[in-house]
Order: sequence, then structure tokens, then C-alpha cells
Amino acid sequence: MSYQIKGLLYEGKAKKIYETDNPDIVIMEYKDDATAFDGTKRGTIREKGIVNNKVSNHFFKLLESKGIPTHFVEEIDERRTAVKKVEIVPVEIIVRNIAAGSLCNRLGLEEGIVLKRPILEFCYKNDALHDPQINQYHILALELATEEEVDRIVEYSFKTNQVLREYLKEVNIDLIDFKLEFGRYKGNIVLADEISPDTCRFWDVNTKEKLDKDRFRRDLGNVEEAYKEVLKRLGL
Amino acid sequence: MSYQIKGLLYEGKAKKIYETDNPDIVIMEYKDDATAFDGTKRGTIREKGIVNNKVSNHFFKLLESKGIPTHFVEEIDERRTAVKKVEIVPVEIIVRNIAAGSLCNRLGLEEGIVLKRPILEFCYKNDALHDPQINQYHILALELATEEEVDRIVEYSFKTNQVLREYLKEVNIDLIDFKLEFGRYKGNIVLADEISPDTCRFWDVNTKEKLDKDRFRRDLGNVEEAYKEVLKRLGL
Ligand SMILES: Nc1ncnc2c1ncn2[C@@H]1O[C@H](COP(=O)(O)OP(=O)(O)O)[C@@H](O)[C@H]1O
Ligand SMILES: Nc1ncnc2c1ncn2[C@@H]1O[C@H](COP(=O)(O)OP(=O)(O)O)[C@@H](O)[C@H]1O
Ligand SMILES: [Mg+2]
Ligand SMILES: [Mg+2]
Repeated sequence: MSYQIKGLLYEGKAKKIYETDNPDIVIMEYKDDATAFDGTKRGTIREKGIVNNKVSNHFFKLLESKGIPTHFVEEIDERRTAVKKVEIVPVEIIVRNIAAGSLCNRLGLEEGIVLKRPILEFCYKNDALHDPQINQYHILALELATEEEVDRIVEYSFKTNQVLREYLKEVNIDLIDFKLEFGRYKGNIVLADEISPDTCRFWDVNTKEKLDKDRFRRDLGNVEEAYKEVLKRLGL
Repeated sequence: MSYQIKGLLYEGKAKKIYETDNPDIVIMEYKDDATAFDGTKRGTIREKGIVNNKVSNHFFKLLESKGIPTHFVEEIDERRTAVKKVEIVPVEIIVRNIAAGSLCNRLGLEEGIVLKRPILEFCYKNDALHDPQINQYHILALELATEEEVDRIVEYSFKTNQVLREYLKEVNIDLIDFKLEFGRYKGNIVLADEISPDTCRFWDVNTKEKLDKDRFRRDLGNVEEAYKEVLKRLGL
């Protein structure tokens, strides 16, 4: 199918969203811009937009095939994808299998500790408040989502973890943690936004080498190479 | 019954816990010491220990009569109470009906906003980490409690809220929020620690005057008088 691109709907830190002639469809365009630490660190990762577009679409197609409804419609070109236009639920979901990042600081855990069970966290997507951590009761009290929607989001998040974890293991990648966003489309909750080295922590199973945005956050070098390596392992 | 007091088991910020000749029973002794803001503010509230002992025992008896198992055994004298010796679950539960305190800062809410539904929060009771906010998945992954225990704790916490809220309304007090601790006693979850003006926010229904530790935290004056007023309204 072809879509006629209309005006820019929203420009975020990593993507631009364009309206199309179809009111149910928007086009996501992935940029090379990188930010970290609540937007205080900024930079560019060459061809990141291309990697993230391809990787994310690959995962969304896989998840869709496993029964998780997603916003994915069709890849347009190497940086752009047509997705269902959703009303984003202003809650970010983080799923963690292995301790890393902010969890270690908050709970005094060593990076790399395997959690006894996956941890799911909710953050209120609100820049002015710096995306504070919340729980399901805050979501209901603030009416960010209904109880049924929260149940669905939790179910899809754990399922996504299971599917991606097994899949990545096959290509020698440990899925440490990742962030998801969900939206409402025609009354139903669907997985939206992106799943990429920007929004996940990927470690090589054997060397524990980081293949994700932590290379940019922590100035570890070989940032572009790490993104490309993920693309290669996925056979893309 | 009478208990022979043995050694001091633990001295906390607000209470001392003594062992007794009965291995299942400890004596809690309430002090007048007051601390706030993670222990950085310190002071004394005259006769606070007496008020808290009486108020807390009054609430525990009420809750026990409504079917919530508690550690309460018997009041010994004005500052001391015999309680079941429990293994404290290292998770503090906060239940909120009206926005106040840290919730307002975190979520950008105005103090006094009535929440659409009560909010329940979990904090990891860990001084070195400054009691970080956690959720049920952290509790399970860190094995701080089992799934069955979490379910029981949540059930008793909301029930406590309902019972105390209705009861306090009768004496013209709004229950804004409060903190609970639970323990394990012979394999079962029981409500432990204290419920007092130290651990609750109480506002006069009409004037919204604060009748709790916020008078100490925020240097509002008439601290002792506020604690005594709670005692008086409860007919103690
Ligand atoms: N299917 C969709 N429909 C509408 N908006 C979406 C969809 N998927 C993602 N979004 C939103 O588009 C924006 C993506 O741009 P991004 O650069 O990641 O933004 P941000 O800086 O907010 O992270 C985000 O606000 C995201 O919530
Ligand atoms: N029934 C009980 N058995 C054993 N310990 C208890 C019981 N009830 C409360 N405690 C614990 O006793 C201590 C009470 O003293 P407190 O001064 O409030 O301590 P803190 O400074 O840790 O808040 C707390 O650590 C509390 O968890
Ligand atoms: Mg984003
Ligand atoms: Mg205490």
C-alpha cells in the first residue's frame, strides 16, 4: 500500500511522526539523534535510525505472529514505517531479567545479577516530572488507564519478554531489560513505539559485551558497530 | 498476664523492643523521640510515647475486631505494650486517600486533592538505600515476601484503610494517608508496628488542621497539643 504523507504530527527525541491521508495510519521516521540521562546528554549515532527501524519491525512482526497485537503495519523504506495511529497510554513499562542501570542504584544490586523472577516497572511518561516510577494503583487513581487495560498491558509485557528472550538467546544475546509503550487503537490495547538497541539492554551471552545504548550513555566506544552487530545477528 | 522483661532486642527511632520470658512475646516501649526526613531532623515531642501507645492499641483492637489479625496482645502501662514477636516483612505499605507529602512532589499533585481511588505504595525498608519505592514484582524478585503474603498484605491494608477511615470520620478526622508494617507470626501475616499520629496524616474534617507529625516536620507549632487532641477525640 502507499500512503500520502501529510504534516508532521510530533517530533520526539528519536523519531518523527507524520500524519497520512489515512486517519488511522501514521508514519514513524527514525532519526540518528541520541539522548540519555533525562535528555541532558545528546549526540548522534550514525545510521542508528536505520538499525532501529529494521530491528523494531522485525521484533513487532515476530510478536504479532505470537499473538501480541501491535501497531505495526508496513515498512516503507529503511528509516520509515507505517503504523496504526494510537492514543499512547502515558505509562512506560520496563521489564527486567537481569539487574542493570537504575535498578542497581535504587536497590543496591550488582549489575549482572540474575533476578529470581522478571521485574515489571511502571513509569509515568511525563517529562516535567522526569518520568517518575509509579505502580498500578497510581495508574488507576490518576486514571492513566483502566484496570482492564493495566491487566492487558502486564500480560502483553511478560509475553513480549518471553518471546524476545527465547528468540535472542538463539543469536547469542541475553535480553537484560527493555522498555515498552502501549496505545489504544479502536478500543484495544496494542504494543506501540519501538523495540530496539535504544530501548533494550542486549548483552553478548558469552563475553557480556554490551550491544545497546549503554555504549553511548557510558562512552564505551564502538557505538555504531554495536547497533550494526545486532542487525547482523538478527540476519537483517 | 505478666511478663518478665529480659534484654533490649532493638532500639529504633521511636520505640524500644524488649524480649520477655515468653519467646513469642516482646514488649514495645514508645519513646518521645521524633525524627523526620530520613532521620536528618530530630527532636522530642513531650508525651508522644504515651499518646502513640494508647492510640495505636485502640486502633489495633478495633482492627482485630473487624477480622484483621494483628500483633497486639495487651497494654502493660502507659508507654508499654506486649505484642506478638514477629519477623517483620521488610516492606512498608503506604495507603493514601488524599494527596499529601511525597506523593505531591513526585506526581505534581496539589496537597488535599481527593484521589479517585486509594493508592497503595510499597517501600523497601532499608535505611542504607533510604527506603526506596518498589512494587510487587520487586518484592517477589528480591524474595522479600511470597506472592500469597503480598496478596494478604494488600488485602489487610485496604481493609485497614476502610475501617479506620469510617471510624475516624465519626470523630471529625479525615484519614489522609498512613504507613503499615506487617510481620510473620507462626506462618501467618499479621499487622505489626504502630498506627499513630507518627505514622498517619490526620486532618480535621472542617478546618483541615493537621493533627499529626507534619506539625513537627514543618514546624507548625502546637505539636504536643495536636497529638493530645487525637487522644481526646478517640475518647482515650
Ligand atoms: N503508533 C503510534 N501512534 C502514535 N504515537 C506513537 C505511536 N508509537 C509511538 N508513538 C509516540 O511517538 C513518539 C515517538 O517519538 P520518540 O522520539 O520516541 O519520542 P519521545 O522523545 O517522547 O521518546 C512517542 O511520544 C511515542 O509515545
Ligand atoms: N511485633 C513486632 N515484633 C518484632 N518487631 C516489631 C514488631 N512490631 C514492630 N517491630 C519492629 O520494631 C521496630 C520498632 O521501632 P521503631 O522505633 O519504630 O523502629 P524504626 O526506627 O526502624 O522505625 C521496627 O523495626 C519494627 O519493624
Ligand atoms: Mg521514545
Ligand atoms: Mg518505625
